[in-house]
Amino acid sequence: MEIALAPKESNFDRGKLDDLLKRRFFYDLSFSIYGGVTGLYDFGPMGCALKANMINEWRKHFILEEGMLEVDCTSLTPEPVLKASGHVDRFADWMVKDVKTGECFRADHLIKNAAEKMLSDKKVSEGVKKELRDLLALLEGYDNKDMQAAIEKFNFKSPLTGNDLTEPIAFNLMFPTQIGPTGDYKAFLRPETAQGIFVNFKRLLEFNMGRVPFAAAQIGNGFRNEISPRQGLIRVREFTMCEIEHFVDPRDKSCAKFAKVRNYPLRLFSAENQMGGQSAFEMTIGEAVDKKIVDNETLGYYIARVHMFLVKVGVDPQRLRFRQHMGNEMAHYAQDCWDAEILTSYGWIECVGNADRSCYDLQQHFKATKVELVAQKDLPEPKSIDVCSPLPNMGLIGKTYRKDAQKINAALVGLAFDVAVGLEKELELNGKITLSVDGAPFELTTDMLKFKRETKTVHVEEFTPSVIEPSFGIGRIMYSVLEHSFRQREGDEQRSFLAFPPLVAPIKCSILPISFNQQLVPIIEAVKECLQSHEISCRVDDSSGSIGRRYARTDEIGIPFGITVDFDSEKKPWTVTLRHALSMRQVRLQVDEVGPTVEALVRGRLTWEQAEEKFPRFESKAE
Amino acid sequence: MEIALAPKESNFDRGKLDDLLKRRFFYDLSFSIYGGVTGLYDFGPMGCALKANMINEWRKHFILEEGMLEVDCTSLTPEPVLKASGHVDRFADWMVKDVKTGECFRADHLIKNAAEKMLSDKKVSEGVKKELRDLLALLEGYDNKDMQAAIEKFNFKSPLTGNDLTEPIAFNLMFPTQIGPTGDYKAFLRPETAQGIFVNFKRLLEFNMGRVPFAAAQIGNGFRNEISPRQGLIRVREFTMCEIEHFVDPRDKSCAKFAKVRNYPLRLFSAENQMGGQSAFEMTIGEAVDKKIVDNETLGYYIARVHMFLVKVGVDPQRLRFRQHMGNEMAHYAQDCWDAEILTSYGWIECVGNADRSCYDLQQHFKATKVELVAQKDLPEPKSIDVCSPLPNMGLIGKTYRKDAQKINAALVGLAFDVAVGLEKELELNGKITLSVDGAPFELTTDMLKFKRETKTVHVEEFTPSVIEPSFGIGRIMYSVLEHSFRQREGDEQRSFLAFPPLVAPIKCSILPISFNQQLVPIIEAVKECLQSHEISCRVDDSSGSIGRRYARTDEIGIPFGITVDFDSEKKPWTVTLRHALSMRQVRLQVDEVGPTVEALVRGRLTWEQAEEKFPRFESKAE
Repeated sequence: MEIALAPKESNFDRGKLDDLLKRRFFYDLSFSIYGGVTGLYDFGPMGCALKANMINEWRKHFILEEGMLEVDCTSLTPEPVLKASGHVDRFADWMVKDVKTGECFRADHLIKNAAEKMLSDKKVSEGVKKELRDLLALLEGYDNKDMQAAIEKFNFKSPLTGNDLTEPIAFNLMFPTQIGPTGDYKAFLRPETAQGIFVNFKRLLEFNMGRVPFAAAQIGNGFRNEISPRQGLIRVREFTMCEIEHFVDPRDKSCAKFAKVRNYPLRLFSAENQMGGQSAFEMTIGEAVDKKIVDNETLGYYIARVHMFLVKVGVDPQRLRFRQHMGNEMAHYAQDCWDAEILTSYGWIECVGNADRSCYDLQQHFKATKVELVAQKDLPEPKSIDVCSPLPNMGLIGKTYRKDAQKINAALVGLAFDVAVGLEKELELNGKITLSVDGAPFELTTDMLKFKRETKTVHVEEFTPSVIEPSFGIGRIMYSVLEHSFRQREGDEQRSFLAFPPLVAPIKCSILPISFNQQLVPIIEAVKECLQSHEISCRVDDSSGSIGRRYARTDEIGIPFGITVDFDSEKKPWTVTLRHALSMRQVRLQVDEVGPTVEALVRGRLTWEQAEEKFPRFESKAE
Repeated sequence: MEIALAPKESNFDRGKLDDLLKRRFFYDLSFSIYGGVTGLYDFGPMGCALKANMINEWRKHFILEEGMLEVDCTSLTPEPVLKASGHVDRFADWMVKDVKTGECFRADHLIKNAAEKMLSDKKVSEGVKKELRDLLALLEGYDNKDMQAAIEKFNFKSPLTGNDLTEPIAFNLMFPTQIGPTGDYKAFLRPETAQGIFVNFKRLLEFNMGRVPFAAAQIGNGFRNEISPRQGLIRVREFTMCEIEHFVDPRDKSCAKFAKVRNYPLRLFSAENQMGGQSAFEMTIGEAVDKKIVDNETLGYYIARVHMFLVKVGVDPQRLRFRQHMGNEMAHYAQDCWDAEILTSYGWIECVGNADRSCYDLQQHFKATKVELVAQKDLPEPKSIDVCSPLPNMGLIGKTYRKDAQKINAALVGLAFDVAVGLEKELELNGKITLSVDGAPFELTTDMLKFKRETKTVHVEEFTPSVIEPSFGIGRIMYSVLEHSFRQREGDEQRSFLAFPPLVAPIKCSILPISFNQQLVPIIEAVKECLQSHEISCRVDDSSGSIGRRYARTDEIGIPFGITVDFDSEKKPWTVTLRHALSMRQVRLQVDEVGPTVEALVRGRLTWEQAEEKFPRFESKAE
């Protein structure tokens, strides 16, 4: 499926971008002086600033604007929490091993690569190729038996040695550790930040004065022990996530702010279209929800907001779509799920999952802890309900069953209405009933137990909220933005640059003195101070090299604006030139105008065209 | 030592603060619905915003203003890296166990608590008390043998059971895990972020165009498997650190910006004063460096900058001092070390370590990897140096030693000048030498090897930089700020509040409608929008309860400003009242003035007194 949908940008040269990112230390393999560790990356000053700016924007766009409750929970997570969430039993990938060397491979990746290799082999018959294409289309839904059958049928081997492979075995992707000095308190590093929010649900609900809907959010690291990670930042073992858990009444997923986004157009790729072999389509989110293509308003609202965020930080909207999960992909408890996918040279990459997780997580933690994770809702009007209350004769039950009497009482109190009515009838009919408590039968007679019928008036009802979860992989979004920002100057392909939105650019402004002349130093200092007082990050490049070469060097790391201090700068009042990297055009302005102007340009309050109208044009001969 | 220096605030009630922090969800024990895990804390919306604001301010104060290179490295760290840094062998605490129950205690904490308990026991003789006081004064320098002797001498037992204790055993504080599917690639969670910077030194130096001094910084989590953590946020197992590694020429630790802080006064507690039983003293950092009390300008500059940061985020300068490490406390490689200590109800707490780590870390990683971690410096003038170059006859050596020939050649090329001269002499004298390569001896004769003397001119020299490291524990600073901000209203002790500096306050402004009247809703929305467009976080409290009670509730969580929408608000142009929580005074202003005014107040561009001059005073009868 993915292959057919990945029209690679023909003129994009990933090698060139990778070289730039490594050379200018956006990021690089961790611990490389020790040989490096696959799937771990360190961010250098450029990558770190880009990441911090994206996260800041995320915090503004979601937490501040939507009034979300932010939490910051630990990565260390005790085993029982992840047992309840299902991760201990099910958060695994199928792995095959080279029978001789023990080398490990993720089974589905090995099958995909081997099948693609056979498909490009001229000696393979068209009949087999058809079978391989069918295999690839269904691979995402395969279990271990299906994969073992495929490996046997097509005789797939270890790609490194040609040796045979073991049967697929489940490998849990969580990193194990233990807490405390005794070594017997098992824990894991969290594979997602979401569980930290669920276990804090009661506190958060209370913080929100008991009201639902509300959303909580968390920014933090997740850890997944991938079997053999490749593909750079796309598949890593430690990564920053931003997750939102929006709690909502399962019977009313309408959204007050939906009207604000109703007309927002999106490219949607529904499950129906995928199964029918059709392509993605444009539609407003309002229409998609009206037609029930997207399940509900709340999910639809988030899909639109996610789209706005991604475009704001530099994702090309032409290479962005929302793909609905098909039935076999979705977690069994999920109601609906739409992945924001971004097209890169690796194909369409899932960058934000938007899932309706229903009540699953809260219910699981309730089952494990017996702590009720519910919200209350005022009923539109008080309701009368029928109650069938057991009236046990505890004296007699105590005499008969001794230490089990309390358990019997607890079981009676917890009886659902229907069950109590059934038992009442049976007791009337037979004069006795058999109650099963913790698997053991207890006979209760009419002198031990009676039932009382009554009517009660209730004003509120309890419910377990549903959860709508947008979950962002920041590293993947960042890599996509890097690819989408990568440009080569027309006519000078060697001269590449990064056209980031100024909002997220790692450094906003460069300062380039035209010479080493000491008289320029106080002007450079004044420019720096003026920029810093407006919280604009800047970098002085006073290295040797022509001004044109230095422009190229600052363009390469995506600095959107550049200031040159030249020999005319010294005339009072001091002036400098301001250059717009994208258009390479320049204006001349006074030093004290630099801070407010660049700040306005970065925050989007001023366009470059407006700046050109405001200040005199400066013609440089350097480029 | 610590006890004598901990004059507890007499009227501070920690129980009240703890209750407030838990009730309003600043932070709380992690996974408490599962029974909780000691030493792990989750931050709720209030704690999370306070922490994020403090970190933002840190990033501005240090990274932006000082032009530092920020990096973001992984927590997962392979064993060889932490073996080289010394953590695998030495990052341990001494632990004793209850011989019967196996309960674990940190030995020094157990001794300290037991000794303090005996000191307060009237039945203990004055002679023994004197010995106990001596014990406490020396405890920080004790090794396992000293502690075992103390336990035996005073007959200390398990505080829980009264059982005997084992001898102290070393317990490594790092959390172990493994990377990848085979289980044989050992790793740890990093105990500090510093090592991530050291292993990236080459890339960072290159990014800085080869120039030293420069500083790199990292904000991220550290993990320490504390034996039995108590004391809330002061001692935890997972915590956020901000670390700076400033690389400098070991022979020139002067600092260009030192003049800017020279007259900054500090409270210093030198090693000499501690040993002499004297108290801390006030001195400018300039005088302290001049008198060699603080080792060098760079360290002094950071001490002053750290002080400015701490005061800016809300630490009471009266409860802040810099304490120098005494000889027995300091790591063996450290040159000088000053801890920023903050006085809290737990005593003086180390919150920022400021250490001159010398060249230790870079040299250790060089030894482990053979990757040279050095910088180059232009010599003031070119220097002539004598060289004694080996001229091996590789043909003959190859014939004689076959596969070892290359190793021999490499060993010859790497000879230091002195060694080469020695071998030259020996070769002349005996006609042969024995060269030891990887522990094996190789005989080389005059026909295999000659030496050539020459003079070379060099323009640069290489050196391993020294590292000056300020290392911040954000959780500890945060807890200190919470204690220092905690206030009770005079005459109404039940009414407590948090007087944060507005810069770090979790929420900047509350919005309180005086009634549920629907006509007020559009005014509330307009106020909210105006605040958000100025990036001011706000919280609407439209719950029931008198306006005075709601003020008290927003004061309690440290919201510095409050807006009330009342019945006069509806008159055009819409106006609201703005309240200053600290003084409880109010002014009245138009809705569109709210955003710019609160922003100016938060950023410190406007004082409350100035606001009172600018806008008409409003007298409220609610408080």
